[in-house]
Amino acid sequence: MHKKKVSIKQIFGDSTLLYEAGLESIKSILTNRQTYVITDSLLSELYAAELSDCELVIIPQGEKAKTLTCIGGTAQRLLEKGADRGSHLVAFGGGAICDFTGFLASIFMRGISFSLVPTTLLAQVDAALGGKTGVNLGHLKNMLGRFAAPENVLIQPTYTNSQLHEDWICGLAETVKHAVVSDVNFFEWLESNQKLIMERVPETISELVMRSGAIKLGIVSTDSTEQNLRKLLNFGHTVGHALELRYDLLHGHAISLGMAAELTWMESEGILPIAEKIRIQALLQAFSLPVNWKDYQPNAWIDALYADKKTAGTYIDFPVITQLGSASVMRIPLSRIREFYVSHTE
Amino acid sequence: MHKKKVSIKQIFGDSTLLYEAGLESIKSILTNRQTYVITDSLLSELYAAELSDCELVIIPQGEKAKTLTCIGGTAQRLLEKGADRGSHLVAFGGGAICDFTGFLASIFMRGISFSLVPTTLLAQVDAALGGKTGVNLGHLKNMLGRFAAPENVLIQPTYTNSQLHEDWICGLAETVKHAVVSDVNFFEWLESNQKLIMERVPETISELVMRSGAIKLGIVSTDSTEQNLRKLLNFGHTVGHALELRYDLLHGHAISLGMAAELTWMESEGILPIAEKIRIQALLQAFSLPVNWKDYQPNAWIDALYADKKTAGTYIDFPVITQLGSASVMRIPLSRIREFYVSHTE
Repeated sequence: MHKKKVSIKQIFGDSTLLYEAGLESIKSILTNRQTYVITDSLLSELYAAELSDCELVIIPQGEKAKTLTCIGGTAQRLLEKGADRGSHLVAFGGGAICDFTGFLASIFMRGISFSLVPTTLLAQVDAALGGKTGVNLGHLKNMLGRFAAPENVLIQPTYTNSQLHEDWICGLAETVKHAVVSDVNFFEWLESNQKLIMERVPETISELVMRSGAIKLGIVSTDSTEQNLRKLLNFGHTVGHALELRYDLLHGHAISLGMAAELTWMESEGILPIAEKIRIQALLQAFSLPVNWKDYQPNAWIDALYADKKTAGTYIDFPVITQLGSASVMRIPLSRIREFYVSHTE
Repeated sequence: MHKKKVSIKQIFGDSTLLYEAGLESIKSILTNRQTYVITDSLLSELYAAELSDCELVIIPQGEKAKTLTCIGGTAQRLLEKGADRGSHLVAFGGGAICDFTGFLASIFMRGISFSLVPTTLLAQVDAALGGKTGVNLGHLKNMLGRFAAPENVLIQPTYTNSQLHEDWICGLAETVKHAVVSDVNFFEWLESNQKLIMERVPETISELVMRSGAIKLGIVSTDSTEQNLRKLLNFGHTVGHALELRYDLLHGHAISLGMAAELTWMESEGILPIAEKIRIQALLQAFSLPVNWKDYQPNAWIDALYADKKTAGTYIDFPVITQLGSASVMRIPLSRIREFYVSHTE
């Protein structure tokens, strides 16, 4: 039923990872448990056949669902359907549905079990792995949440076939990030397989999803609550989140722009050779991801840096790349970042 | 500065318990940490001097604060004040403020540290001990929450001096519960000291608070997430919460009525001798707590039993007292409870 099964131990609990496994796998695991599948109206239509025997709870599409109001309303609907402490939630959807479901499960009656079935490339290589859950507070992303381990994560690459290509490539931004911060061999593999990846050849995508996920889990398992090493995964996200907050950008686009902007700073500080910066940007562009961060006026997004969870007072823990596949975290004043970007976009 | 300091280890974290310690103790512990004190407008006036050098965040009084909407609004205010992942929250108030603050801290930026300074007898002997945090969902109590250990719990009995006597005696209901489920010697001590307790003699109250808290912590530390033994602490709460949901009752009054009602069922089932039931009710009455549960029509409250977190399908895990100081948990059909109360109030 599934080709590969991995058990991962995390500080906040154990998870089982099932690759190339779909909903039928989770149904067989969860027999005899009262299970509710959280999804959106679009996915419930696209996968109507597979979801036909599931108890569905429909939430709004995308980030719009990630509010406390929607958490309260969904909890109310679960109660009306008879959910109790023994119930299990299954997220069937992209990163937003996974984040929402994990958070709801972790606070419903002080915590019930849950599983994730990510249906976007971004969620399969990144959002569904690592136990971060949460909702937004106004425009501020993931300000309220928990670290909570799903019981199972089911990764079926064919579920991403329903994504538009523009949405699908967003997942490649996080994949490039994983390669850049810790695996130069994987980076070279991505370069060599650009064409097959963009053609979405199934075998190539399966390998990409597994290798990208393995990097993330390797980092997360040594630092599940983001005290230190895990901060490397914030590469591209300091500027990326700020851009996302101010402009109506897809997450993957924002992260690609964020990586390009942060690499430019590293190069200017003498931390990263210019050749490596150019090579990384070339791969992003080969994946049709944007890199022209100077198109965005810093006055519009730079204040958003100050509202970031990654800040500690007026400092920020900033992941820096020293060479392809090697990164570390520097604590630097926010003002230094600010000055750099203001002076480089005028 | 404080007479007794106890470290308690719980599955979800470590806590330090400081008896007869006030705000000055926590200020000395939290030096150099960005600390926000969550309290209500009444307490902020009553203790204006002690709170004068604290950064206050005022929330509504009592259960009204325990909503997701108030959690979101308070998180927003913390962000505006500059709170980050290194910040610390201090609850200064009754059970509702403690529940609210613990929950907010456990989800703010995926979890920050917090301490509790309970100012009501009920919170000092019960609500602030044991790591339960949460908010209500409509009329349903504590439906969304977390188990989360406070870093410190400061128990200063003099803070309860500002309570009205009617509110203060509510704490005695939980104290009687602790004695009944696990400590016959403490029950006898409560009987012998009725008069001194009702006169609120400081030395007697200090002993009461410490002994009552020790029972609760003893039970909680063996079962922090309420898998088994901790369910004993729900004695009186099955019927009590249902009454509280339907009538405008103080929590301690509802629990006292709930204990009386549940004891009557136990006696009718031959589980508890009638003499012990009478003795427990007599102590509740000596503390001016209500026991006439038949005054409340079961049709008004019995449906609320079904919405209780303690239910598992159509069954409920019901704590039963077999003799003073000894209790166990029975899983019984809700319908059996329902039939009993319907037939005994007609």
